[in-house]
Amino acid sequence: MTLKVSPLQLARTLDELWSPRVVAVVDGYHVKVAKVHGTFGWHAHPDEDELFQVLEGRLRIELEDGAVELDAGEVYVVPKGVRHNPVAESVCLIQLFEHAGTAHSGDAHLSWTRTAAEQARPL
Amino acid sequence: MTLKVSPLQLARTLDELWSPRVVAVVDGYHVKVAKVHGTFGWHAHPDEDELFQVLEGRLRIELEDGAVELDAGEVYVVPKGVRHNPVAESVCLIQLFEHAGTAHSGDAHLSWTRTAAEQARPL
Repeated sequence: MTLKVSPLQLARTLDELWSPRVVAVVDGYHVKVAKVHGTFGWHAHPDEDELFQVLEGRLRIELEDGAVELDAGEVYVVPKGVRHNPVAESVCLIQLFEHAGTAHSGDAHLSWTRTAAEQARPL
Repeated sequence: MTLKVSPLQLARTLDELWSPRVVAVVDGYHVKVAKVHGTFGWHAHPDEDELFQVLEGRLRIELEDGAVELDAGEVYVVPKGVRHNPVAESVCLIQLFEHAGTAHSGDAHLSWTRTAAEQARPL
């Protein structure tokens, strides 16, 4: 029997910012959690949609044609190929849902960029 | 630009029990919400994992080798092929993440069984 997880409780244990960690797997998709604060950087995922859901705090997702402000519980899906820049004015905990093969910084190499193996380390 | 959604707020608008509704799409996967109360019925999804996340209330997922109790925010993934029976002693609001092709009652035809088109009706 697999174990239940609490994404919020796991996200609260994170130290590193913008460093997503896998907490559950659904077929070939990953549920990840991350602690974020500040500006991530502009990027796109050419082949995969990316779902953001805020667990605690507030996240702004800047897009080339506007921005979306997400409060706790709210969901936004960035469609494949759409450039976006996540920004959190204060510490914010988020849950992501995306294909296991999605590079979290997409086509950009940022100081935050983490490998799949780094994201898969157990919490 | 797509719109943000609040799964919890949308789930609160539901009248029908055990009738999942699609609120977001990630590639070929669906985020659904449902209002549940009572016993759903035993079933399995032979080819797809199914993620449950409680938004409000408490859900028990009965399994052949035990049961998992999920409180608000908690996640459990029922692996493909595993028989399970969701039970809520009181009204509970849940979020599901599963392949768009997953039949929500799996290999069982229950009074609750809804078609993909019924699940896709806008909220």
